[in-house]
Amino acid sequence: MDLAKRVDDLLSRMTLGEKVGQLIGMYEGNFSGLASSPGGTQSIKDIQDAIREFKIGVSTPFGTGISSHNNVGVVARIANRLQKTAINETRLGIPLLIAIDALHGHANVEGGTVFPHNLGMAATWDPERVHQAARITATEMRATGATQNYAPMTNVARDPRWGRTYETYGESPHLVGELAAAEAAGLEYGSDGSGDPTEAVAATMKHFLDGSPVRGENAAPMDVSPTTLHRVFVPPFRRVVEEGVSAALVTNSAINGEPGHSSKQYLTTLLRGDLGFQGLIYSAWLGIGMLVEDHRTATTVSDAIRQAADAGVDVFSVGGPTYAGHLLEAVENGEISEDRIDESVRRVLEVKFRLGLFEHPFVDADRARRVLGRDEHRHAALECARHSMTLLKNEDVLPIDDSVDEVFVTGPNANSVDNLCGGWTVAQLDQEYGSTLVDGLTEVADGVDVRFEQGASIRDVTDLGPVRHGAERADLAVVALGENWYVHEFGPRDITGATGEFPTRSRLRLPEAQRRLLRTVTDTGVPTVLVLVSGRPVAVPDVVERADGVIMCYLPGLAGGRALAEILTGEVNPSGKLPITMPKSVGDLPSTHDRLPTPYPIGSDEHPSSYDPVFEFGHGLSYSDFEYRSLSVDSSGAKESGLIDVAVDVANRSERRGEEVVQVYARDLVSSRLTPVKELIAFDRVSLDPGETKRVELAVETHRLGVVRPDGSSVVEPGEFEVTVGELSKRFHIDD
Amino acid sequence: MDLAKRVDDLLSRMTLGEKVGQLIGMYEGNFSGLASSPGGTQSIKDIQDAIREFKIGVSTPFGTGISSHNNVGVVARIANRLQKTAINETRLGIPLLIAIDALHGHANVEGGTVFPHNLGMAATWDPERVHQAARITATEMRATGATQNYAPMTNVARDPRWGRTYETYGESPHLVGELAAAEAAGLEYGSDGSGDPTEAVAATMKHFLDGSPVRGENAAPMDVSPTTLHRVFVPPFRRVVEEGVSAALVTNSAINGEPGHSSKQYLTTLLRGDLGFQGLIYSAWLGIGMLVEDHRTATTVSDAIRQAADAGVDVFSVGGPTYAGHLLEAVENGEISEDRIDESVRRVLEVKFRLGLFEHPFVDADRARRVLGRDEHRHAALECARHSMTLLKNEDVLPIDDSVDEVFVTGPNANSVDNLCGGWTVAQLDQEYGSTLVDGLTEVADGVDVRFEQGASIRDVTDLGPVRHGAERADLAVVALGENWYVHEFGPRDITGATGEFPTRSRLRLPEAQRRLLRTVTDTGVPTVLVLVSGRPVAVPDVVERADGVIMCYLPGLAGGRALAEILTGEVNPSGKLPITMPKSVGDLPSTHDRLPTPYPIGSDEHPSSYDPVFEFGHGLSYSDFEYRSLSVDSSGAKESGLIDVAVDVANRSERRGEEVVQVYARDLVSSRLTPVKELIAFDRVSLDPGETKRVELAVETHRLGVVRPDGSSVVEPGEFEVTVGELSKRFHIDD
Repeated sequence: MDLAKRVDDLLSRMTLGEKVGQLIGMYEGNFSGLASSPGGTQSIKDIQDAIREFKIGVSTPFGTGISSHNNVGVVARIANRLQKTAINETRLGIPLLIAIDALHGHANVEGGTVFPHNLGMAATWDPERVHQAARITATEMRATGATQNYAPMTNVARDPRWGRTYETYGESPHLVGELAAAEAAGLEYGSDGSGDPTEAVAATMKHFLDGSPVRGENAAPMDVSPTTLHRVFVPPFRRVVEEGVSAALVTNSAINGEPGHSSKQYLTTLLRGDLGFQGLIYSAWLGIGMLVEDHRTATTVSDAIRQAADAGVDVFSVGGPTYAGHLLEAVENGEISEDRIDESVRRVLEVKFRLGLFEHPFVDADRARRVLGRDEHRHAALECARHSMTLLKNEDVLPIDDSVDEVFVTGPNANSVDNLCGGWTVAQLDQEYGSTLVDGLTEVADGVDVRFEQGASIRDVTDLGPVRHGAERADLAVVALGENWYVHEFGPRDITGATGEFPTRSRLRLPEAQRRLLRTVTDTGVPTVLVLVSGRPVAVPDVVERADGVIMCYLPGLAGGRALAEILTGEVNPSGKLPITMPKSVGDLPSTHDRLPTPYPIGSDEHPSSYDPVFEFGHGLSYSDFEYRSLSVDSSGAKESGLIDVAVDVANRSERRGEEVVQVYARDLVSSRLTPVKELIAFDRVSLDPGETKRVELAVETHRLGVVRPDGSSVVEPGEFEVTVGELSKRFHIDD
Repeated sequence: MDLAKRVDDLLSRMTLGEKVGQLIGMYEGNFSGLASSPGGTQSIKDIQDAIREFKIGVSTPFGTGISSHNNVGVVARIANRLQKTAINETRLGIPLLIAIDALHGHANVEGGTVFPHNLGMAATWDPERVHQAARITATEMRATGATQNYAPMTNVARDPRWGRTYETYGESPHLVGELAAAEAAGLEYGSDGSGDPTEAVAATMKHFLDGSPVRGENAAPMDVSPTTLHRVFVPPFRRVVEEGVSAALVTNSAINGEPGHSSKQYLTTLLRGDLGFQGLIYSAWLGIGMLVEDHRTATTVSDAIRQAADAGVDVFSVGGPTYAGHLLEAVENGEISEDRIDESVRRVLEVKFRLGLFEHPFVDADRARRVLGRDEHRHAALECARHSMTLLKNEDVLPIDDSVDEVFVTGPNANSVDNLCGGWTVAQLDQEYGSTLVDGLTEVADGVDVRFEQGASIRDVTDLGPVRHGAERADLAVVALGENWYVHEFGPRDITGATGEFPTRSRLRLPEAQRRLLRTVTDTGVPTVLVLVSGRPVAVPDVVERADGVIMCYLPGLAGGRALAEILTGEVNPSGKLPITMPKSVGDLPSTHDRLPTPYPIGSDEHPSSYDPVFEFGHGLSYSDFEYRSLSVDSSGAKESGLIDVAVDVANRSERRGEEVVQVYARDLVSSRLTPVKELIAFDRVSLDPGETKRVELAVETHRLGVVRPDGSSVVEPGEFEVTVGELSKRFHIDD
């Protein structure tokens, strides 16, 4: 029987209550809700009761920041227990969808592989690597019975004050789109019938539509022009939909005055209509209650539920019994049609069938223990970390050479696995699973004496005497500064400190304690490498100035310490490139490479440059020395094939094998509306042996040069364009 | 003959060349243009030549920041000379419109009355005072032959990084609208035939549509949602149009991807259509050239001129002979219709007739000398300064009492008239015209010894030894910190220092030199009053913490020193209220009282509060003690009369007469779209004798409670609302 028939058949046998149940989810753990949204402590038993009584079809019983259980065997057994309840104790025996937050590997379960967070993954500029990481994540998830991932994050980060910057693939709509699409494809791999659906999960692109909340304040309204909305924030979602994705999670924010959850314009007209999305639309956890309590566009929770269903929401992700009751009542009252419910239920059932849940609802806890974090998975994570780290500055200090006998390591992020992993990771990791920078260096740097003094915490100096002493006697110092563990914005308080303390929204500057630590080291005259472990760009113009070398690590995950050590020692040649601009100060925001032009009404001394960051988007050094030559552009097929051929020679003029990311930027020289002064439109990663030259050919889709209008349409306007690759640039024409 | 007939008659006799000439302006002075816009040095003789040859009808021969001449007698004679050329040496003898920048009085001409800049005027919350200042400005302008003012600034300042913040009436659309309308009415007073048109000038509301360029970067694109555009930025323009205004100046920015100068949507559909504006639309100085060189939406300058004319621009304000040629050519080629030209010329002629220029083209230079800065004008400016200064903090330190024998005054803004005046003022003022704080205190504080050491410049410490000594021996210290003289953003360099130095866009924090100066003083233990002379809010949480008293002076103009001294001594009871929020840091921007709500997805410790500034919008202390009681709201006539009656008792519970600004805020408790958590909807200034109680009654227009939609429409939705006045609040209902 084909999928549609199975769905229809099952649907035809369901009561209204059973249908409504399929659209309701429940969490396990302790969560502070709103008066209008479920909150408080909920147990696995509560979920089982709700399955029996309300036939709920979706659950988040582990795998989040609030889950009580994170042992691999335990969570696998929980999954089985819930599936048994659903299958054996309900009339129709429909298995559950188990949705979790596996944002950088199955990292909320101990032993799961922990990849770099997305901002680091983006620094690899490597969709294949992202795809592979996603496949591994799906495999590990399925091994524990989790079947849906609240990923990929498809938002574009335009303001590093936003605490969720680390979860994104950075500032470029093109880069974000390619990587989020690769992640979705990796998670969903095989679920289309082409492979083994029991190794796949339902991907959930999120948050529709978000990316630039005012003040970088999580869930604050997004207030950008329609052109910017369609030019910057929508394209990655379009790209992910094209690639295939089972679900979308709605933003908690309001866009242009409309809360995402009640916006028919965004969820139905734009997402289902213009973007052609056919999957499930999930409410964010407290999103429905916020309509009543924060956005104030609904008077009661049933009003909010009706608005959301009407706007296009299919599943109330953690609604529980209360929401089930409201939803049922709304249908019985005729406020929501049963057809509307059927439509949503059909989508839920389709995903469950596609993932093979009816055939394979249970997992093997012993197998799960073997699958999670197995060698090849960890190796893949290490490879990701290696390719993500971005060498920002190197004044003849790296890699560590034979003259270095002793390395002094210091700083709050030098010896912490938790801080390397960041949020959406089991909060207090078992340290045996990962390596800190100190571990990594000790292991990797043969014949080098590695000494460590922490010197300072994230916010406070501890003792600088031993630091001065350690730096003085060493041949090289490595100072690991940055941020500590946080989720969402910068909470929760018990881990990150009081609200408003660094890391916090309004400050990008490192705390004085960290700056003082670095000064103490550099004042001794020892060559110093600054290592930044941070979920977002920090504003460090002076700090960078003092150091001889600077490496941006992002949040590299469990293999971060080792990967960094390999880069320091030269075992690995760095090849990451910044997926986001590192501005000079918070006052310079927004600071993105693809800015719109600004006139200078009274002359060039009127104000500082619009884009003059410490490090530009796309920046990243190598131990090799690459040279670009012979840039050519063939736009003759621009209209017919929809492709423009860009080619360039890249030469490795060093004695060391290395990888380079070729970045193609374009500008429309004259257009009917403002277009960016420069915009990433294509990229490719190449590996070059010493002395090798390769001709890199990129087929750029013509539509990337389109002028975006407020209604979201985009038209490539005939005329002159300019592409830039490295220092080279070339003008070309697109005919009418 | 009535106006329309006179216009038609004259128009019917004009050649195409003569018509085009009326739409072209020229400046005097040295200005760095663009390749596509007139620039370089132009003399009065050049303007005369252009009048003869191209019949240009508009000119800016003095009264700007680049003018060579600022002596009152000289500029009056220049006006006469140009009018003579226009009247005697052209076939039709049409007088010139002479447009200047008189933003806070006729301040680009020596001897003119210099009022506080708009941000300070806004702190008076007093439309009548603003109206009176505008009338004085118009009188002084006309005395020197200037007939059009590039004012009122009608933009709402939402980001204090913007260098033009001081030119605005602050952050509240309602307050800005009321004050800009009062200014327009004052400038135009009598030009409608009701009074003496030779005392009136053409007001020019500006910049349409601007107020929140990205990054606060002057002329950068404005990128806000349509709802915000229509809720925040459009209403003040609507208000000024209702009041009556002759002209509008186009923004240099682009809005939602469309440059103002080529946007038919904004200039014609919105401004002429929805807002019903019937006056002249002026191009900004380099605005046309920017279409070619910055915005890149035109390929050539003639293309840009055609686009602008098509969009709705009437007058090319500094186009000169080149633009006249292009415009003529475009009409001859049929690219612009002669009807379109006629329409614009008709508007120009109408203004010239209305202002009585045909009857009274010339001025009397001797009279001009007597009119500028006459006693009643200067007294009005002093009264404005007195009412604008805002007492932000007062820990029993003010007013200065009998126990104070010696006051120590220090800081870069303690003894500078230039810095009190700010930009759009003759750059190097003759000090005899105004009083510094030191002058003022010496004059006003009877029996008090006033000692002064500057201690620091805006950016550098000079000598702190004498400061420490001075502070130690004094009974009170007054430390005057803040910004120095700048126009537009923060140039020009020769006055304000290298681009990027404080004051500069990205930093709101006072330079360390100034902070150190304050610490030096407070460390001595002397009671200290911090005085801020600044065109915008500066971020001073720690500085404010250290001081016992804080007064925000804005840029108070020539009478600033005296007014401040009177407040310090208690001769004047402070009554200014902040027209803009003073945020804690640049990282907290945007920070406005009328923010939209933000949910907290994972609990209240997720992030710091959305609005937690050092001083809130509306804040301002008095030496009196006011109490609010018995707030009542009558909304029964909300629909019929369009008015809601709000009333409250205000009691002066002190021994001192004082003035209070009653501020009414509202919130729509549930609405179909997001509405601000709080928004100023009405205000009134009252004066209360010691012990007096007044019932203040305010008729709030119901439409102020409307929910604004993306298309600009606004509907008052029935339901519950809440008003807040002081600490009191009251709910009320508006019926369906």
